[in-house]
Amino acid sequence: MALKTREQFMDSVAKLKPRLFIAGERVENMVEHPNIIPVINTLAKTYELEHDPEYQELTTATSHLTGEKVNRWIHVPQNIDDLHKSSMLITAMSQKLGVCHYRCGATEAVHVLSSLTRVMDQKLGTEYNKRFTNYLRYLQENDLTAGAPQTDPKGDRTKRPSQQQDPDTFLHVAKKTEDGIIVRGAKLHQLGGMVTHEHIVFPPIIPLGKGEEDYAVCFAVPNGTKGLTYIAQSGPMEAERREAKDIQELGIPEYGSEVTTMIVFDDVFVPWERVFLCGELEFTSYMLDKFVRTHNVLCRGGCKVGYMDLIIGAAQTIAEYNGIAGAAHVRDKITEMVRTRETTRACVFAACQNAKEDPPGSSIYYADSMWGLMASTCMGFGFQEAMLLAADLAGGAVVTMPSERELKNPETSHYIQKYLRATPSVPAEKRMRMLKFLQHWTAGPQGILSWHSAGSMQGNRLLTYNEAVAGLEEKKRMAKELAGIKD
Amino acid sequence: MALKTREQFMDSVAKLKPRLFIAGERVENMVEHPNIIPVINTLAKTYELEHDPEYQELTTATSHLTGEKVNRWIHVPQNIDDLHKSSMLITAMSQKLGVCHYRCGATEAVHVLSSLTRVMDQKLGTEYNKRFTNYLRYLQENDLTAGAPQTDPKGDRTKRPSQQQDPDTFLHVAKKTEDGIIVRGAKLHQLGGMVTHEHIVFPPIIPLGKGEEDYAVCFAVPNGTKGLTYIAQSGPMEAERREAKDIQELGIPEYGSEVTTMIVFDDVFVPWERVFLCGELEFTSYMLDKFVRTHNVLCRGGCKVGYMDLIIGAAQTIAEYNGIAGAAHVRDKITEMVRTRETTRACVFAACQNAKEDPPGSSIYYADSMWGLMASTCMGFGFQEAMLLAADLAGGAVVTMPSERELKNPETSHYIQKYLRATPSVPAEKRMRMLKFLQHWTAGPQGILSWHSAGSMQGNRLLTYNEAVAGLEEKKRMAKELAGIKD
Amino acid sequence: MALKTREQFMDSVAKLKPRLFIAGERVENMVEHPNIIPVINTLAKTYELEHDPEYQELTTATSHLTGEKVNRWIHVPQNIDDLHKSSMLITAMSQKLGVCHYRCGATEAVHVLSSLTRVMDQKLGTEYNKRFTNYLRYLQENDLTAGAPQTDPKGDRTKRPSQQQDPDTFLHVAKKTEDGIIVRGAKLHQLGGMVTHEHIVFPPIIPLGKGEEDYAVCFAVPNGTKGLTYIAQSGPMEAERREAKDIQELGIPEYGSEVTTMIVFDDVFVPWERVFLCGELEFTSYMLDKFVRTHNVLCRGGCKVGYMDLIIGAAQTIAEYNGIAGAAHVRDKITEMVRTRETTRACVFAACQNAKEDPPGSSIYYADSMWGLMASTCMGFGFQEAMLLAADLAGGAVVTMPSERELKNPETSHYIQKYLRATPSVPAEKRMRMLKFLQHWTAGPQGILSWHSAGSMQGNRLLTYNEAVAGLEEKKRMAKELAGIKD
Amino acid sequence: MALKTREQFMDSVAKLKPRLFIAGERVENMVEHPNIIPVINTLAKTYELEHDPEYQELTTATSHLTGEKVNRWIHVPQNIDDLHKSSMLITAMSQKLGVCHYRCGATEAVHVLSSLTRVMDQKLGTEYNKRFTNYLRYLQENDLTAGAPQTDPKGDRTKRPSQQQDPDTFLHVAKKTEDGIIVRGAKLHQLGGMVTHEHIVFPPIIPLGKGEEDYAVCFAVPNGTKGLTYIAQSGPMEAERREAKDIQELGIPEYGSEVTTMIVFDDVFVPWERVFLCGELEFTSYMLDKFVRTHNVLCRGGCKVGYMDLIIGAAQTIAEYNGIAGAAHVRDKITEMVRTRETTRACVFAACQNAKEDPPGSSIYYADSMWGLMASTCMGFGFQEAMLLAADLAGGAVVTMPSERELKNPETSHYIQKYLRATPSVPAEKRMRMLKFLQHWTAGPQGILSWHSAGSMQGNRLLTYNEAVAGLEEKKRMAKELAGIKD
Repeated sequence: MALKTREQFMDSVAKLKPRLFIAGERVENMVEHPNIIPVINTLAKTYELEHDPEYQELTTATSHLTGEKVNRWIHVPQNIDDLHKSSMLITAMSQKLGVCHYRCGATEAVHVLSSLTRVMDQKLGTEYNKRFTNYLRYLQENDLTAGAPQTDPKGDRTKRPSQQQDPDTFLHVAKKTEDGIIVRGAKLHQLGGMVTHEHIVFPPIIPLGKGEEDYAVCFAVPNGTKGLTYIAQSGPMEAERREAKDIQELGIPEYGSEVTTMIVFDDVFVPWERVFLCGELEFTSYMLDKFVRTHNVLCRGGCKVGYMDLIIGAAQTIAEYNGIAGAAHVRDKITEMVRTRETTRACVFAACQNAKEDPPGSSIYYADSMWGLMASTCMGFGFQEAMLLAADLAGGAVVTMPSERELKNPETSHYIQKYLRATPSVPAEKRMRMLKFLQHWTAGPQGILSWHSAGSMQGNRLLTYNEAVAGLEEKKRMAKELAGIKD
Repeated sequence: MALKTREQFMDSVAKLKPRLFIAGERVENMVEHPNIIPVINTLAKTYELEHDPEYQELTTATSHLTGEKVNRWIHVPQNIDDLHKSSMLITAMSQKLGVCHYRCGATEAVHVLSSLTRVMDQKLGTEYNKRFTNYLRYLQENDLTAGAPQTDPKGDRTKRPSQQQDPDTFLHVAKKTEDGIIVRGAKLHQLGGMVTHEHIVFPPIIPLGKGEEDYAVCFAVPNGTKGLTYIAQSGPMEAERREAKDIQELGIPEYGSEVTTMIVFDDVFVPWERVFLCGELEFTSYMLDKFVRTHNVLCRGGCKVGYMDLIIGAAQTIAEYNGIAGAAHVRDKITEMVRTRETTRACVFAACQNAKEDPPGSSIYYADSMWGLMASTCMGFGFQEAMLLAADLAGGAVVTMPSERELKNPETSHYIQKYLRATPSVPAEKRMRMLKFLQHWTAGPQGILSWHSAGSMQGNRLLTYNEAVAGLEEKKRMAKELAGIKD
Repeated sequence: MALKTREQFMDSVAKLKPRLFIAGERVENMVEHPNIIPVINTLAKTYELEHDPEYQELTTATSHLTGEKVNRWIHVPQNIDDLHKSSMLITAMSQKLGVCHYRCGATEAVHVLSSLTRVMDQKLGTEYNKRFTNYLRYLQENDLTAGAPQTDPKGDRTKRPSQQQDPDTFLHVAKKTEDGIIVRGAKLHQLGGMVTHEHIVFPPIIPLGKGEEDYAVCFAVPNGTKGLTYIAQSGPMEAERREAKDIQELGIPEYGSEVTTMIVFDDVFVPWERVFLCGELEFTSYMLDKFVRTHNVLCRGGCKVGYMDLIIGAAQTIAEYNGIAGAAHVRDKITEMVRTRETTRACVFAACQNAKEDPPGSSIYYADSMWGLMASTCMGFGFQEAMLLAADLAGGAVVTMPSERELKNPETSHYIQKYLRATPSVPAEKRMRMLKFLQHWTAGPQGILSWHSAGSMQGNRLLTYNEAVAGLEEKKRMAKELAGIKD
Repeated sequence: MALKTREQFMDSVAKLKPRLFIAGERVENMVEHPNIIPVINTLAKTYELEHDPEYQELTTATSHLTGEKVNRWIHVPQNIDDLHKSSMLITAMSQKLGVCHYRCGATEAVHVLSSLTRVMDQKLGTEYNKRFTNYLRYLQENDLTAGAPQTDPKGDRTKRPSQQQDPDTFLHVAKKTEDGIIVRGAKLHQLGGMVTHEHIVFPPIIPLGKGEEDYAVCFAVPNGTKGLTYIAQSGPMEAERREAKDIQELGIPEYGSEVTTMIVFDDVFVPWERVFLCGELEFTSYMLDKFVRTHNVLCRGGCKVGYMDLIIGAAQTIAEYNGIAGAAHVRDKITEMVRTRETTRACVFAACQNAKEDPPGSSIYYADSMWGLMASTCMGFGFQEAMLLAADLAGGAVVTMPSERELKNPETSHYIQKYLRATPSVPAEKRMRMLKFLQHWTAGPQGILSWHSAGSMQGNRLLTYNEAVAGLEEKKRMAKELAGIKD
């Protein structure tokens, strides 16, 4: 049986020994660290939901490799229905967990690599697809979770990878041996990377040119491999959690706020059977195209849709707690958030429904590129707008509220209960918890994290123009015909 | 054979004798009037396209009544594919004609009435559906075009129909006889109404209450019925066309700018077999819901998508003629227009693909309401933004250009050719024609007409909120669960 | 006495004999042509207002040359109060006339040239300022009106003036003689140019480089000078006016919609005493800076503020006529328009109040550049937004209304009176006139003309960044100090 | 000498003994608490700047009561120059401190009360002004700092103060005695309230009606008065500061992030000489008008302008550190921030320059209301937009960065220095500090706190409409005249 139980997952995590640092200190026992516990809780919940009948249609799928039931995060979409379900799975996890659930990196990676390795083999006579298929089977059979680190430090943004003063600014192959490759560099922003079993490392999402073959590398390594160092994010939310006396004081008690890590690759050895791209520059644009197609319907089009449901729900709840839910401007603000949610969702649906098989004959399906970009476009600024609207409905207390600890302090508790309740029927505790939940989003890092983690809007516009160019000639023809212009 | 040829249509128009006024004068011979010719040309073209193999898949359908090939404008969508094609038909006509093509009123009317009359008969034991089916068969067998006048003068907007000082402010049943009803009032803004064969008159799109039964009336009358008077719009574009020496001077030479008419109903008799609603207040909200579902995917979601293609095409053309098409801000403006076009189209696609049969067992399909509203939302402000962007790319000459007549004037022609050309490879004549085409949209009434004819954005928001309300409880539940709130 | 009466102005116009074409025909008798009459009416009104006690504080000033009372349009601002009054004069004219009043070109020209010629003389030892002062005295003593044609045809926008295939694409000096210069080229978009007594021709508003000395030319010529040809704009509004039976049918009966003209310079001789710049490339950026400073507080910051008052007034009136003025969304729309009006006006006030003398010791004052740019920024998109809001409040009839001629037609008049009235207390005629007035703006060319005539928003942003650059270092320093960064 | 030195201020704080709670615990020694130290540092710096020659023109003024030099925060503006300087003082403090400086509440309070008490005395024959003047002299002579708590808990927002289930929901007079009043209730969101010497308590900013006299109360009490309890805000930023090992780890090391407190008034006695309003309902609208006039030019128009300078400076710095400062989209983003900054500042300038004396003869000046509202309007959404733009330029590391503690950890320091530097010339430490500074704003509570603390934009719009109403008649008249409508 390819599906781990929650307990089996917890056992597997207990065995991980990444060289991990947080806030300047080495973390020896990850499973007891207050900043890592929520990441583990979140992942554990996803394993639990693989066995939950209410969620199984989304969390599991039938492997095209083995015919067995596997988790959908590492299932390759075999048809349009699979694409719809991938996107809906991510939405459902966002609704259920309220934070990154750390598994969609793998979803995108296995999707892209299953096509890429086929196409490379067809053109180059390589054996990448066999390697990748073996690896995918390994992931599926052991029900492993994998991230897909992608963002390099980038250094001086005006320079290409090969022009950087420090050649390690972008992760690259430092040496090739008979047995494998040795890589050096770092990947940033990896969400929950210290807990995922595997890392499927991607090259940077930029066009690479002649002489930059060493940067065009894609491979997988297990968590804790020799040479890996994990340095975790540590900001206000992490400090608050370390200092909390009871997780109920916090915005999302169980699953926390997200924790990212930079992963340093200090001459890490990767055996050839885990290398899926190594210098084939001419395939990076194919890779990018596939990545964009899957990312847009999973990230802004999937994950953020689920977050929007939470924001709308929380905004409506706090408006009710404040007694203003019936006001015209409140209804208007809710409508505006719904607009972002529904236009995005409609675009995702349309993108998935118009999917194409690629490469032909592969039974691997990719969403329409333009409409996936439109999903991302609708959500991009709309999500940030929703942050402001929700904060507006919450009122100033979303920032200025005292700690929930006051409710346990006999000297202040009665004041809090008296003065922080709004509508008399709702006790102050409930209102404070909903405010704290909204603080997590609107007055903390989550809003901006959602902005960055979903990819740049600047890039989105460029890709949109590129997609649109082909259609301009036909549009010009139509306009000229009506204007009476003959070319 | 149920499809008229262009010639048969022209013959049928020659027989119409509406009591028509334009600019203060009676129009005796409609087919020779410069303001009516473009309307006739447009409709004639649609008949021509019923026989054009390139367009037939969209312009025709198989009647569910007779099994014969009929024009799709008066075909009732029997499945999801039909819905997609209805919307695409309207888009294609907008692309091809650049003006209202005057036939989609019928499309919406027959769609709504085919369900409404069934539902009424089921509940009330009436025979409306039989009447309506007979009428529909008559339309299909004779390949007739029909408008669906709907907007009443409305008078004092703070008052309901029954409270108006003049009871005729909203069209209503003035008398019922054994043979039929006598109606009085007026309908405004009817696009091309003086040329369509039939008028399927709809009640106002507002909730009607007890005592307002006479306003809840829906019926059909032929063009030119006794008691009807048509008073046409006459503004700058109409004057320009009347005064033109050659239609090539004008923005869309052949199909012109649109002409609307108010239609006065001065005690018009309608036989019972053409009455499809008469006082059944309790069905007006059902009617409204169906109308909204069909309207959003045909109008902002269909028609305006086609217009956007023209605007984008014209904007790109004029940018090329001006030599600026490669500039970053120009590409950004094109991208912005594409955004509106594609998000709208994606929402329409999603709305149609998620259609539901209504009433059950009827084989009549309606698009999803929320996503249809989202299509309308995306296009609403986006279309107006595109007007400004296109005008910006065109430059000031979009307003200040001289008449094309100068090109035939030996005293000025050489100056025009010398100084109104931009990129040397494009002669001034082509540039002037494209500017004139864009003038039609961006510096004339077409932009705002598109705003109003597609329905109010204010109403769109209210309907969106109403649609969203049902889902708020589930969203609240999800947010509360994560915030640790137990109700 | 330097102020012409209305009659004296009319006499002076009767003597003008420009070689003028409209719609392909030579205009022999300008004062009787329906498209020119409104231009003459408008200018005549401005002369009338020079004698109107209510307006004289704005329309007149004391000449610094003669100490006599002169019209303020050709008065050089001697202090901050003068700057405020220049801007307020233009606003007042827009409020009073509702169209371009054709005199502010001169205002900007005499302002810029009075400084430019001084500065050049100081640096170069030339006598430009003497020439210019003589010319200015001539204008003031004869109370003449002058436009300032500036926009060249521009040809291929990717090329500089000297790179164009046709060297006449930008107006330039074709020959220099002992007595003067001979110029060739054309200027576009000149508002009312066929009626102004003089043309003060400006070089293009772009940086000119080595080898483009011939394009750096500024001079004055009288209307009708040998070699000048005027080709007037002719679009829908012009056609409507030519075809009107009674000017009351039109949107702004007396003053019309604006008419621009292109002016062709076919080897026109200009004596040296009317040449104010001729090849001095190094002063064009000074000229541009002065132009921007005066233009922003007169155009978007002056003229468009007056138009906004009209739009707001008309929008509020039509909302009242329609009976919706109390609705929340209507008040919100009015507020939004007021926002644009008042932020612009505040920026203009601040820009003028912070004026600087330039060159030092000259007693010539220029508004602050950044805040003038901000005035333009506030009005730029805000004016276009107001067009849409006003059209929305007007309703569809702003496009679809019949001609006012129907009110004189006994067959239709009663229908119009019955069905085009809204609030019963307001007769249909009033409502139709206000709709027609709004049609002029929102469904005609005036909205977009305002966009283009005020200068590109793209350019506005670039100038803003350039203004801002100097202040960035100080802002960086402040942020670094707080962040604990020591450089 | 009325100006305290930094040391004198520190001594005065050491004597304060408020009953203060943070995070569920009683704070016995405020001057050593990590969350209070930054508040004290900030205030101490403002006292220091009272003696700094570079700042004294702004930080001090000449008292109209004593003729002595006093701090400007409690100086009543005697002329237009004073108004300009008040606004500029607040801007300068924001630039210098990057957080609330806790003294402008007093500025607004003494401004409003100096007029209000005069007007009341004139109408009612009371002695409020004498009382207030005594109090003001006391503040000035002792150079005290005062907050002005204003926001009540508000309870059920659909109900008025007198309708709330708990009458203490709004602070009110519970009892009047011969010697004074006893008040009960609470005030929320008081920035730095535990450290200010005095509290000048204001009634809620809502119209109060008959029967609500007890809520119309304004008075002053010293910090720590019997019956007062302070419960401080405690969120992520406060936790991070408590847990920090070195303040250099934090975004604004010295001045921290702001800390607010709710202040509970549990039957607090106020002697009559400190009561400035007590039941005079008819003066609350006058009070509101004055408050709005002073608030808009100090808060969004003053304080937020200074913050914007920091955001722009930080955004430009991080863009340079990242090596992207020359990119077109970056310049565009900087321009957009500058737009918000400069339009706001221009409106403030215009508002102050057009101030009016009120009441007449008082020598007390208030800024223009409409243009003050416009300042607030420009900054409102613009500030939130700037948060997003700055976060975008910073990149994802603004959220995901590790703690600066890693730089002291020999196991990770070299990795951080290698991989978190961007442009090679800038060491990682500087980049991390600027990112941390920006995190404080864009990924923490400061953005939203600025939104709420400046007053609701919804209210801003309503006030704007109310201001605009008077001018609508004149605008209607102008439009009608041009449209040919005679009333």
